[in-house]
Amino acid sequence: MAEQRIGVAVLGLGNIGGAVARALVHDASALERQSGLTLELVGGFARGPEYGERAGIGRERVSSDAEALIDDPQVDVVVEVLGGEQPAAALISRALAAGKHVVTANKEAVSKHLPAMLAAARDGNSALMCEASVGGGIPLLVSLRQIMATNRIERLRGIVNGTTNFILSKMDAEGADYAPTLAEAQALGYAEPDPTADVEGFDASYKLAILASLALGRHVHPQEISRTGISGVTALDIADARARGGTIRLIAGMQRTDDGATLSVAPTFIPNDDLFSRVMSNFNAIEIVGDRVGPVLLHGQGAGPSPTSSAILSDIIEAARAGSAASLRLGE
Amino acid sequence: MAEQRIGVAVLGLGNIGGAVARALVHDASALERQSGLTLELVGGFARGPEYGERAGIGRERVSSDAEALIDDPQVDVVVEVLGGEQPAAALISRALAAGKHVVTANKEAVSKHLPAMLAAARDGNSALMCEASVGGGIPLLVSLRQIMATNRIERLRGIVNGTTNFILSKMDAEGADYAPTLAEAQALGYAEPDPTADVEGFDASYKLAILASLALGRHVHPQEISRTGISGVTALDIADARARGGTIRLIAGMQRTDDGATLSVAPTFIPNDDLFSRVMSNFNAIEIVGDRVGPVLLHGQGAGPSPTSSAILSDIIEAARAGSAASLRLGE
Repeated sequence: MAEQRIGVAVLGLGNIGGAVARALVHDASALERQSGLTLELVGGFARGPEYGERAGIGRERVSSDAEALIDDPQVDVVVEVLGGEQPAAALISRALAAGKHVVTANKEAVSKHLPAMLAAARDGNSALMCEASVGGGIPLLVSLRQIMATNRIERLRGIVNGTTNFILSKMDAEGADYAPTLAEAQALGYAEPDPTADVEGFDASYKLAILASLALGRHVHPQEISRTGISGVTALDIADARARGGTIRLIAGMQRTDDGATLSVAPTFIPNDDLFSRVMSNFNAIEIVGDRVGPVLLHGQGAGPSPTSSAILSDIIEAARAGSAASLRLGE
Repeated sequence: MAEQRIGVAVLGLGNIGGAVARALVHDASALERQSGLTLELVGGFARGPEYGERAGIGRERVSSDAEALIDDPQVDVVVEVLGGEQPAAALISRALAAGKHVVTANKEAVSKHLPAMLAAARDGNSALMCEASVGGGIPLLVSLRQIMATNRIERLRGIVNGTTNFILSKMDAEGADYAPTLAEAQALGYAEPDPTADVEGFDASYKLAILASLALGRHVHPQEISRTGISGVTALDIADARARGGTIRLIAGMQRTDDGATLSVAPTFIPNDDLFSRVMSNFNAIEIVGDRVGPVLLHGQGAGPSPTSSAILSDIIEAARAGSAASLRLGE
């Protein structure tokens, strides 16, 4: 394969963005051997140069002007890992319209603004990539796409939020109640100081919205999803589930119906002979049911800098190789 | 997407080939909607026209001359599902050298003749595709390829043979011994009248050879793999495993070492808290461990006409879309 230089900008130099930027700088030769492409970090956007030091890429590559960095002609691919709805969504659309491929792990921005992003990608003949936004490093969207080439997706279900799975599997293992287990998860860094987005099921609903949009071929807004979090699950509920030969997990599910689909995020009884009952701690699992292939289950680490940066780096390479043909799309 | 007509020949009209041929004829409009391509069955190769009738594609499309069918200028993609080493391997190389993409489910032919096939594909600028050869409909090779773009594969392990998994999980569930369970599997059609290829681990070693070739970037011949089948596993062995808190499964495994890799197929103790202990009946599971992404597990139906034809049809579409870039390769 001919050598090709790909300039990358990273918006956000926290845990994930820092790991991506560090890999681009320090693992460049391994990535080149594996991919046949020369990936080059043009710069990172963060609140201050100290984020560059923390990420191990030095202060001088850090810019405090995201738009100028996106517009830099050296930049071919923009990695967006700021998180949150805005300004992330606007920056993604700006980059796509300017002909830059965008790789993002931002499930909230993508799930809420998918139509605008896809329109911008069409205008810019660019690719929107978000493998890392659902299931971390699990090769989920590439698998869904392969299955969808020859299958109608009948249903999907997933354990897609590591925080709630950590809490529920710990409550089950220890017979503990919700509040102390949440506090323990917070102390260990598995839950945020404000845990609402995870424990009330918002994060899972964003991820399900992305999967369902792909599976149904239309934009599914997270608001269309019936959502119940885990803050009402008690030690007694789990003991009761155990007595009935199972456990409780937060399940994000889509079931196709005659006139559309039902979509929900809710704590759900899972019998012991179901593989989902064995998904422990902060792991994720997603089951895709196609009309030809039957049920296919994928399991792996749904978060964390290393798995997530693995998916982001593959998306960068795939966008560089295939261009707009690699993009997320709704139907053909 | 512009409409593109893709002529397909199917070598072998048994259960799998018949399902593929039938889908090409009877599900043409759904496949066109899903893929944006017009797939057309040019013909099938079988011992007699009655195979065409059984497959529901009529007698007139059946040819008894495989080479003439491959050489037909209308044929763009050759599906090889004859099984066995020869003449399958020679026909695959002939088609590839002639510039036809080849989609095969034939793990024996591919694992033993990979270098010759890849050389023929280079000569013909064509693609060798074999997603269906390991793990049936599970999107395994596409996932492995995505992971390998940014990871070094540290180890692999798989339950990749449905027959032996059916026998071992049934022996465990019923406390039964090997011989009567094999007889039951044969009566149900889960085991062949001559079960050697499955129960002695040959089939698993072919599949592991393909996965290891991809993961290591060099041809791994099945003879390099240490192989022990399940015919020596007794009800007592399984009772003993159960007493130790686990069960026995036939595991195909690769572990990278300082100077290469160890490769084996053998009955293996699996503790109850390992997801592999829950892989039941004729399902398959494969775990890929990358240095960034950690362990990723894929689970689904590893055989059967419907899942296998799903993988074959996706390979046809991928080869038609991406041409030789879609091909299996060893390193870049």
